[in-house]
Amino acid sequence: MSSAIYGDKRVDNLKIAYIGGGSRGWAWGLMSDLAAAGDLSGCVDLYDIDFEAAKANEVIGNKFNDLPEAVGKWTYTAKRTIGEALTGADFVIISILPGTFDEMESDVHHPEKYGIYQPVGDSTGPGGIIRALRTIPMFREIARAVRDYCPKAYVINYTNPMTLAVAALYKEFPEIRAFGCCHEVFGTKYLITRMLKEHRGLTVQREELVSNVIGVNHFTWLTDLTLHGEDLFPFYAEAIEKQEAKLNEELALVDNNWVKIAGSTHDRVKYDLFKRYGVMAAAGDRHLAEFCEGSWYLESPEMVQKWGYSLTTVKWRKEDLEKRLARSARLQSGEEAVKISNTGEEGVKQMRALLGLCDLVTNVNLPNVGQIPNLPMGAVVETNATFTAGGVRPVMAGPVPPQILNLIARISAEQQMVLEGAFEHDLDKVFAAFCNDPLVRLPLAEARKMFDEMIENTKGYLTEYFE
Amino acid sequence: MSSAIYGDKRVDNLKIAYIGGGSRGWAWGLMSDLAAAGDLSGCVDLYDIDFEAAKANEVIGNKFNDLPEAVGKWTYTAKRTIGEALTGADFVIISILPGTFDEMESDVHHPEKYGIYQPVGDSTGPGGIIRALRTIPMFREIARAVRDYCPKAYVINYTNPMTLAVAALYKEFPEIRAFGCCHEVFGTKYLITRMLKEHRGLTVQREELVSNVIGVNHFTWLTDLTLHGEDLFPFYAEAIEKQEAKLNEELALVDNNWVKIAGSTHDRVKYDLFKRYGVMAAAGDRHLAEFCEGSWYLESPEMVQKWGYSLTTVKWRKEDLEKRLARSARLQSGEEAVKISNTGEEGVKQMRALLGLCDLVTNVNLPNVGQIPNLPMGAVVETNATFTAGGVRPVMAGPVPPQILNLIARISAEQQMVLEGAFEHDLDKVFAAFCNDPLVRLPLAEARKMFDEMIENTKGYLTEYFE
Amino acid sequence: MSSAIYGDKRVDNLKIAYIGGGSRGWAWGLMSDLAAAGDLSGCVDLYDIDFEAAKANEVIGNKFNDLPEAVGKWTYTAKRTIGEALTGADFVIISILPGTFDEMESDVHHPEKYGIYQPVGDSTGPGGIIRALRTIPMFREIARAVRDYCPKAYVINYTNPMTLAVAALYKEFPEIRAFGCCHEVFGTKYLITRMLKEHRGLTVQREELVSNVIGVNHFTWLTDLTLHGEDLFPFYAEAIEKQEAKLNEELALVDNNWVKIAGSTHDRVKYDLFKRYGVMAAAGDRHLAEFCEGSWYLESPEMVQKWGYSLTTVKWRKEDLEKRLARSARLQSGEEAVKISNTGEEGVKQMRALLGLCDLVTNVNLPNVGQIPNLPMGAVVETNATFTAGGVRPVMAGPVPPQILNLIARISAEQQMVLEGAFEHDLDKVFAAFCNDPLVRLPLAEARKMFDEMIENTKGYLTEYFE
Amino acid sequence: MSSAIYGDKRVDNLKIAYIGGGSRGWAWGLMSDLAAAGDLSGCVDLYDIDFEAAKANEVIGNKFNDLPEAVGKWTYTAKRTIGEALTGADFVIISILPGTFDEMESDVHHPEKYGIYQPVGDSTGPGGIIRALRTIPMFREIARAVRDYCPKAYVINYTNPMTLAVAALYKEFPEIRAFGCCHEVFGTKYLITRMLKEHRGLTVQREELVSNVIGVNHFTWLTDLTLHGEDLFPFYAEAIEKQEAKLNEELALVDNNWVKIAGSTHDRVKYDLFKRYGVMAAAGDRHLAEFCEGSWYLESPEMVQKWGYSLTTVKWRKEDLEKRLARSARLQSGEEAVKISNTGEEGVKQMRALLGLCDLVTNVNLPNVGQIPNLPMGAVVETNATFTAGGVRPVMAGPVPPQILNLIARISAEQQMVLEGAFEHDLDKVFAAFCNDPLVRLPLAEARKMFDEMIENTKGYLTEYFE
Repeated sequence: MSSAIYGDKRVDNLKIAYIGGGSRGWAWGLMSDLAAAGDLSGCVDLYDIDFEAAKANEVIGNKFNDLPEAVGKWTYTAKRTIGEALTGADFVIISILPGTFDEMESDVHHPEKYGIYQPVGDSTGPGGIIRALRTIPMFREIARAVRDYCPKAYVINYTNPMTLAVAALYKEFPEIRAFGCCHEVFGTKYLITRMLKEHRGLTVQREELVSNVIGVNHFTWLTDLTLHGEDLFPFYAEAIEKQEAKLNEELALVDNNWVKIAGSTHDRVKYDLFKRYGVMAAAGDRHLAEFCEGSWYLESPEMVQKWGYSLTTVKWRKEDLEKRLARSARLQSGEEAVKISNTGEEGVKQMRALLGLCDLVTNVNLPNVGQIPNLPMGAVVETNATFTAGGVRPVMAGPVPPQILNLIARISAEQQMVLEGAFEHDLDKVFAAFCNDPLVRLPLAEARKMFDEMIENTKGYLTEYFE
Repeated sequence: MSSAIYGDKRVDNLKIAYIGGGSRGWAWGLMSDLAAAGDLSGCVDLYDIDFEAAKANEVIGNKFNDLPEAVGKWTYTAKRTIGEALTGADFVIISILPGTFDEMESDVHHPEKYGIYQPVGDSTGPGGIIRALRTIPMFREIARAVRDYCPKAYVINYTNPMTLAVAALYKEFPEIRAFGCCHEVFGTKYLITRMLKEHRGLTVQREELVSNVIGVNHFTWLTDLTLHGEDLFPFYAEAIEKQEAKLNEELALVDNNWVKIAGSTHDRVKYDLFKRYGVMAAAGDRHLAEFCEGSWYLESPEMVQKWGYSLTTVKWRKEDLEKRLARSARLQSGEEAVKISNTGEEGVKQMRALLGLCDLVTNVNLPNVGQIPNLPMGAVVETNATFTAGGVRPVMAGPVPPQILNLIARISAEQQMVLEGAFEHDLDKVFAAFCNDPLVRLPLAEARKMFDEMIENTKGYLTEYFE
Repeated sequence: MSSAIYGDKRVDNLKIAYIGGGSRGWAWGLMSDLAAAGDLSGCVDLYDIDFEAAKANEVIGNKFNDLPEAVGKWTYTAKRTIGEALTGADFVIISILPGTFDEMESDVHHPEKYGIYQPVGDSTGPGGIIRALRTIPMFREIARAVRDYCPKAYVINYTNPMTLAVAALYKEFPEIRAFGCCHEVFGTKYLITRMLKEHRGLTVQREELVSNVIGVNHFTWLTDLTLHGEDLFPFYAEAIEKQEAKLNEELALVDNNWVKIAGSTHDRVKYDLFKRYGVMAAAGDRHLAEFCEGSWYLESPEMVQKWGYSLTTVKWRKEDLEKRLARSARLQSGEEAVKISNTGEEGVKQMRALLGLCDLVTNVNLPNVGQIPNLPMGAVVETNATFTAGGVRPVMAGPVPPQILNLIARISAEQQMVLEGAFEHDLDKVFAAFCNDPLVRLPLAEARKMFDEMIENTKGYLTEYFE
Repeated sequence: MSSAIYGDKRVDNLKIAYIGGGSRGWAWGLMSDLAAAGDLSGCVDLYDIDFEAAKANEVIGNKFNDLPEAVGKWTYTAKRTIGEALTGADFVIISILPGTFDEMESDVHHPEKYGIYQPVGDSTGPGGIIRALRTIPMFREIARAVRDYCPKAYVINYTNPMTLAVAALYKEFPEIRAFGCCHEVFGTKYLITRMLKEHRGLTVQREELVSNVIGVNHFTWLTDLTLHGEDLFPFYAEAIEKQEAKLNEELALVDNNWVKIAGSTHDRVKYDLFKRYGVMAAAGDRHLAEFCEGSWYLESPEMVQKWGYSLTTVKWRKEDLEKRLARSARLQSGEEAVKISNTGEEGVKQMRALLGLCDLVTNVNLPNVGQIPNLPMGAVVETNATFTAGGVRPVMAGPVPPQILNLIARISAEQQMVLEGAFEHDLDKVFAAFCNDPLVRLPLAEARKMFDEMIENTKGYLTEYFE
């Protein structure tokens, strides 16, 4: 039962349960956004399988209240059980790492032995599928806990593979009020604001760019893009040509050496997809490339370089985690001060809208109840949705344009099969999806061999499939 | 081509075309709302088949600019052709009377000879169907004019029969950016705010009540109703009992004489429907009754009285029009001063949202592209929609609840057949719908006789069906 | 496990389980048809809650083998448990009476107190709904038994309410291979053959008349009717006029006294529906009338007489049963000899087709998997289907024509709600359907009173709803 | 108007129009099948853009009447205009070559310059798409001629690309009674009969094998396969292993030299697809390979050989045509006698069923009206259908199994885009499909270059796209 107290344009005594957060980044951003929200207050209960990680965040979170600019006051408490954390929650936030970076190392790098490269490897492709096998059982467990402890709470997921994580929540507990959030679409809009600045001298806020969002997470598309009633697609088409020309000039100056040009991605995959299909792909190039036919952007590391983006190694991730853990220690000890900064994330704004404090239309991941009529009902898709005191309702995105329908539909079908296979503990069904993935272009026997090896590498987190 | 000029949080140099308005009421309200909107300005071109009526509105409209509180400045001009009015329009407003009140007299009162009573007779039932036969050709003509003169304009319809008027626009010109607006749902929300005041002592704004809207115009339903996250259905169920009890007391005091109790409607039809189905009907009782099985609320004038509402006569409408014409003369001459008052209508707010000046989620009439998956695609339905600079997009309303599905689906099917019959000039197809209407419970031969008579009575506006 | 032995164009050692049959008629017809089928043999196990009834049929069934013309040999055995009857069955036939004729008396005649008349009262209307409440739990039990004892068997249902009986089987055990059979469509085709004989002098077999069947059981429609490639609808339209003229002449001769004209039905409801909609209703008038708006054909007994059909009383049914029981005794004792006669039923032909011995396309009741795209998925509908060794597959019937869509869709929605209410033991949900039925045109309070009384009258068979 | 005369189990005075047939093969088979059908007679009017080719077939066709075993008598006449050929036709057969083998040479072999190999190149892939661009305008013209001269005739297409040819007929003239026929599924059933003979010693007719057919032409799948009620999938799985083992033995004997093993295809692609997905692909390997991801079976000529099938060259086709032309000359002169032989085709059986002389359930290509609910409505698909005097109606095939849905859906989407692009003369839309084809795995610029070259190579037949 919620203990929230509705006042005059504010809500107090809220309870948020935060599941995960050992990796630190997301948790700190949320703490900052909550401290900056003057019309909310309450408590945040932290739960992580590593209790010490939750405890660290408790210490850090409570420091925010001391900041003079912290207009939102929140009490952070680490809890030893998920039930304690969830009981009475109005909102549940999930941000976990399914397994460790050792498992992720197999996900991302083992396929390289077969000539298969993955710039991220957490959402799709062989790595994303194997990661999903670890993730789905965890999310089933969370769904059951939500059902038992806080069935009316809104559940916000940030974990990848986003689509299958959200799908698992709904399949396990169909009445759950869950949705999945991702900032990739914002990134594309920021790109457009930079282009408008550069080519037209206009200063435009991301929120002024209005678009219809369609697709699955990390493979989302904008079927239109409007500024003040103007269709920006012609502008984008022209801007692409200019960006490419400029890039080629810069490359010539540095002897065609990408490393010498700033930036880890140059949006060339996005541009190529726009030229192919006339609609805007709206995620980072590293993500987009993974969902396409492997021969287009991921045939080899050289091809990746030619497209101007990069393959994120798990080694880098491990090092990056070390840095965050060090920072965590500094924040706990007070060596480094906590501070409020705008994260650009919408989580807190979503909560405010769900509490009736503002209106919001933004893109989220939800089961398809018809918002995309030509994708299967029930599949988790990403579209715009309205956030109101009545809940989250998808806006009709309409059918996927025909020229990109099969790109998305095949991914959606693959995800559906992985979901079913995982729920039924039927690894053969999972493999039927796996061998059909756009990146896994192997003869059947080789595909099976790779699959079995990747399962073997990560079997510590897959015990329930073998019971 | 739009000549709008986007400034800093304002848009100037807009052009609105207003079609119709001879009946005055809507036009004056719009003038008031435009004058009150400080972030818009431009011109309104008025077109009516009665040029003098448009001219009268030109005079009145321009008077608003002289009011000191008129922060929005608009130039009103009567135009002799629809083409002049539409050229360059950003918005087109349609508010016409299809035919005259003489035709409406046949629509509403002729069926009484057969024992069929209609409290309104402009949306459904025998009267609504015959009125649709006059309306559809007019809207086809408007749609073609929009296509030729301002294909990108937003077209806002206020004319009844709403559903078939909007449907005709889309069937004639599928790319039209039209939608239909109706304030009936607001009325139901005001009822709830009054109940909350009375039974809980709460002061709540209509906009704070959040609901999912589903159905067809004037037969709309709320599948939920939320205040601060609270489901208000239990409250409504209790409030109904109290209202009924109070009403019965009052009736006892005046010897069961309804006339002596204030108010022309007492929401008893709405209450009965809630008790039958557990979802809220959200239109006035006079409208709701017409869409239901005739034996429920409309068997006889006595039954109408028993349910506490009334049959609006066309005689009353004619008298009312006289009053408005007299007021028009006074406003033109300056005998009566124009003044700005809040109409409660959302037309101007919708324009502002479509221009990117605010966000808006509200209920409108649009073709079904999947927002109600269990009504036919393409049928015009009423649901919530988002209004943004990218246009109007329906929010997923979800399926009509099973217990009321057939109530709505049969009306929707009837409307579809009337639309097709009207486009094909096939009156037999129209009759197949007509004889099936919930109010027309006649043997086949009698139904045909009544139909033929009603056609004959209004044939002056039906010439194209006999060419 | 089936013990069937496939030979050269024959199958032996089959096992049929026959559930019910106490009412005798169906069982004897099947015995005759089995004896006449030279390419099948095996055993029939009989199960009835009245063991003596099954035993009587055992005696009678085995007598068929002694007939010299009995080319199909079958061993009949009464079984004490349903499990014994079902184990190893290739086919299961269900023909039960849900409750007794005392319950049916309430179903059919109690509503007459409220001015509601039902010519049959076993499929729809208040009687059909209450009967469904008794039937559904019985069919759930049968479905579970099929699942446990013979999950691969084909299950053929003849029990009313057909639609809800079949729906209950599938809802309880989704993998069941069940379908429902009804001869009403054949009756309409025989009518056409008689018309062709009379008006054209043609002798035509029922099977030569090809049509597309659409609708729900007992409210089925033919959207076309073809003889040798000729569209017979124009012929039917003309023949109707002649039939009506002749009937009026005959009536004049006997002083407008229907009773003096032979035949208990004269197809005038069917003709009226054709004139209304231009498609052929294809069931007996007594059934059709029950599915339509009550004011059309069932306002009063006088109206029934005017339409030339009759209200079957339960008194008549009771007397008729007595006659059949008497005949059962004579058949058992040998006083009357069993004999083979063509029943016109298709049950045995269907079995032969499912065994691969012939091809068959005929109309049956099955869950909608898309054969009627504009009725809800999962609802049991009646259309043509192919019968092959691969099973029963519906033929695409296409969408219900718009002019009759709401007639059928409202019934289908009503049935769906009754099904759900019965499974959930939620009588309020059942009542929401009940008060919406085309025959129940009562104020809400009266409808509830009648509903409660009918429940009370038959509560002996409704105990599970009150547990 | 049909001049057909219906007799006692026979139909005379029929008229068949045969469009095309210059390539001879199909026409002669039809002549033979017609001569062998004792319950039909009439005339066949032949139309070909090469009048001499039609004339040659006239001479040959009329010779069949002299054969003593020719129980069906038909008069063949070459016509100079399509209008003469179609007027009064009961059936229209289309079997044309869209363009010449010179265009086909570009279709099939030009992509080889880009490393793209096509074993057939007439249905899908780059060759199939370019061929479709030639074919669609021709079929639009035929559709208009059918509409004008024989709108009620049944139109049977044998031309490739089958799917798009049939789709073009329906898009141009939606009321057309057309369907497309292909014998590939029969081939797979013959394979099973051979396996049953070899591994079980059973002699089974193709017609005894019952299956549900689903997919698009040349990429059809059987979701089940039944013999006498037995599910044959386990048998097929085992038989595959034995076939593969035997094949490997044979290969070892001939030093791994495929050429030395008899047969141009060894069904290994079919087996691999069954192992991947658990449902049976049911077309020849040469066809199946073209619809799959290019890296699976078509990476190189060596890979083709490894899979045991072959690339049909257009050179071979040209030589083969020469042989048929020589045979045509011999048949005309009488040097070689015509003779009746069973072709195994079902065209004449289909005609007989449509005339009411027999029942038939077989697989054909028709627009999707719901027979495959998870493929787009309107797309031409291949499923079973019933053939009766009432016409052709698809049998519900049900949804495509999830594991192969994306394989088929992406092809279906590609075909839909090619169709739209061709109708709109929008080659960019066609290219958006082209660059997305599973065989065209090229960078965008290269794909465009190949596309433009293939257009240029065949532009003589593409003039209407450049008007």
